Amino acid sequence: MSLAAPRIPPFAPPRRTLMGPGPSDVPQRVLDAMARPTIGHLDPAFQAMMEELKTLLRYAFQTGNALTFPVSGPGSVGMEMCFVNLVEPGDQVIVCVNGVFGGRMLENVRRCGGVPVAVEDPWGRAVDPAKVEDAFRAHPDARLLAFVHAETSTGAQSDAAALAAIARRHGALTIMDCVTSLGGTPVLIDAWGIDAAYSGSQKCLSCTPGLSPVTFSERAIERVKARKAPAQSWFMDLNLVLGYWSGEGRRTYHHTAPINPLYGLHEALRILAEEGIENAWVRHRTLHQALRRGFERLGLDFVVPEAERLPQLNAVRVPAGTDDAGARARLLNEFNLEIGAGLGAYAGQVWRIGLMGHACSAQNVSCCLDALGRVLGRSE
Amino acid sequence: MSLAAPRIPPFAPPRRTLMGPGPSDVPQRVLDAMARPTIGHLDPAFQAMMEELKTLLRYAFQTGNALTFPVSGPGSVGMEMCFVNLVEPGDQVIVCVNGVFGGRMLENVRRCGGVPVAVEDPWGRAVDPAKVEDAFRAHPDARLLAFVHAETSTGAQSDAAALAAIARRHGALTIMDCVTSLGGTPVLIDAWGIDAAYSGSQKCLSCTPGLSPVTFSERAIERVKARKAPAQSWFMDLNLVLGYWSGEGRRTYHHTAPINPLYGLHEALRILAEEGIENAWVRHRTLHQALRRGFERLGLDFVVPEAERLPQLNAVRVPAGTDDAGARARLLNEFNLEIGAGLGAYAGQVWRIGLMGHACSAQNVSCCLDALGRVLGRSE
Repeated sequence: MSLAAPRIPPFAPPRRTLMGPGPSDVPQRVLDAMARPTIGHLDPAFQAMMEELKTLLRYAFQTGNALTFPVSGPGSVGMEMCFVNLVEPGDQVIVCVNGVFGGRMLENVRRCGGVPVAVEDPWGRAVDPAKVEDAFRAHPDARLLAFVHAETSTGAQSDAAALAAIARRHGALTIMDCVTSLGGTPVLIDAWGIDAAYSGSQKCLSCTPGLSPVTFSERAIERVKARKAPAQSWFMDLNLVLGYWSGEGRRTYHHTAPINPLYGLHEALRILAEEGIENAWVRHRTLHQALRRGFERLGLDFVVPEAERLPQLNAVRVPAGTDDAGARARLLNEFNLEIGAGLGAYAGQVWRIGLMGHACSAQNVSCCLDALGRVLGRSE
Repeated sequence: MSLAAPRIPPFAPPRRTLMGPGPSDVPQRVLDAMARPTIGHLDPAFQAMMEELKTLLRYAFQTGNALTFPVSGPGSVGMEMCFVNLVEPGDQVIVCVNGVFGGRMLENVRRCGGVPVAVEDPWGRAVDPAKVEDAFRAHPDARLLAFVHAETSTGAQSDAAALAAIARRHGALTIMDCVTSLGGTPVLIDAWGIDAAYSGSQKCLSCTPGLSPVTFSERAIERVKARKAPAQSWFMDLNLVLGYWSGEGRRTYHHTAPINPLYGLHEALRILAEEGIENAWVRHRTLHQALRRGFERLGLDFVVPEAERLPQLNAVRVPAGTDDAGARARLLNEFNLEIGAGLGAYAGQVWRIGLMGHACSAQNVSCCLDALGRVLGRSE
């Protein structure tokens, strides 16, 4: 009658070096924190830790925003939380598309009943602020500007300060994807005047995947509170989530928070605070230069022009005559090194080599250059 | 200019005994699994583990459903995934409401543009199948029946087989919440003919919170594929998620899976398979009887009539003259014992005492009865 119990051995993951587009190498301290005893999501000890998490995240985002917390889901949930709360049916939203994740923003706007206005730039390039200015002139009623600060599909970085300034001049709020930038290159929420931003735990923060740090300005909260109809998602409705994550008064149950992963994020953010975020930015820049010099010796070409490159995500063209999947499989099987394949239009064409957070080390740079040199049959 | 780095000590959670409505005590084996090295979500080693997870979940759900997997979010996301995919705007949905979580289903239907038909039963009671039959007769076009198998807010269990049979007779699909039942009392997806079900990792499965096992029948998948418009949620759109979790052919990236929590769930489900799910059901029933006898000696009254009680969630009335919050605080601070407060209409009136998964042990029953006896000033 009943299904028989499957016999499955314990899972023993191999020990990889993670230099793809995320997850990145997770420090042992973070893994150890994840294994601490589980307590309840309404336990006063846990709630004290939630307050510390908010403080640590405000530091990472460089913001004083009260509403700064980790969403209980991966970056895509953080993204959707921003859109379902800030877009109302019929709203015009200017969306910058220069890679996969800008395209996903467009799709989010559509599913919220918004009217997206796409501003397209070539893959591998930054968003052109002049085009955004033109889009606002052509669509003066646009209420939102959405853009990706660090395009994980291409490794291009856009000028968030300039884009946010344009939106502000036109009376629009901004939603920024900083999944790949947070902790790796400057993300200055308050200095730039960003209204809503989302990130991921598994990139330059080097926690395990599954959490999405978000932050919302007062202007964003006002707009959410003034909505005509509730957000279409119950789980992502900020008006409800606020009751659990807001520090004032009694917390009300909304959903059961993912306790142990939050221990991990707390520890990952402590590591960032110990190093100092400015030092982390310098480390990413410096080691990117070392990797870049090695790539040049190996004859690898960057996809993104130098001035627009993200130090933490290096997209290079798969060399002519090289078997993309075969080379990545050799890196994984012979060197335990994960690098990223191309995504979307770049599938089969591009490798994405991450230098993110804990994985951004001199040792990893050497290991990667050595392994790539061997697999490509080119010595540095 | 920039925010100063906060100095925050490591988080050292207290060691609690978790006998609330979830999370429950997590076995050390599961915690250890969570701390194994992180690998990539597209790593072949990880993908092999995903297949094992699906096999283990099919065992837990007692189903052959191909589409059985853990959603990358807490139970509320599993719930919303069922509704956003299966409800189309204008659809009539019969929703059974006998506690907080039935009410949440109602809200989900509304936010998907569906037309909910509420079938109400008193808190603390099972759903009355006769009322559901009447509702279908009054609303012959209803396309879906949604009900909570095990109401976490009250500890009442409903007759899922009877409810699913009624829906089938009326040509409707079923969505079942089995967050609190899975692994604790029989959940027989195929035998009962349930079309969509969602659960949580942190109740009778004794993994950490943050994952939601779900399963969908072929009929459910057909309905999702036949939708006129895509689901309103990008993250929860089954047509997209399928590309990553389906075993056939090449997996396509959808979002970054929460790697380490999935290690934990794999281990938690291995523990369930080792014990044998029928043995786990017996253990929950047997220890519930021991707890019940103790409660009777202490003069505690159950909220739910005996025939409708969940063994794994025991709701009792706060004794007259007892300070609810004060007593729970003493249990936590003096005995490191977490029990649950009343939720919604039961706030301040009821305690919810869980005997879930790993926390369902003779030792915990004794510890709970002893601590409650002391705090209430009553000896057994």
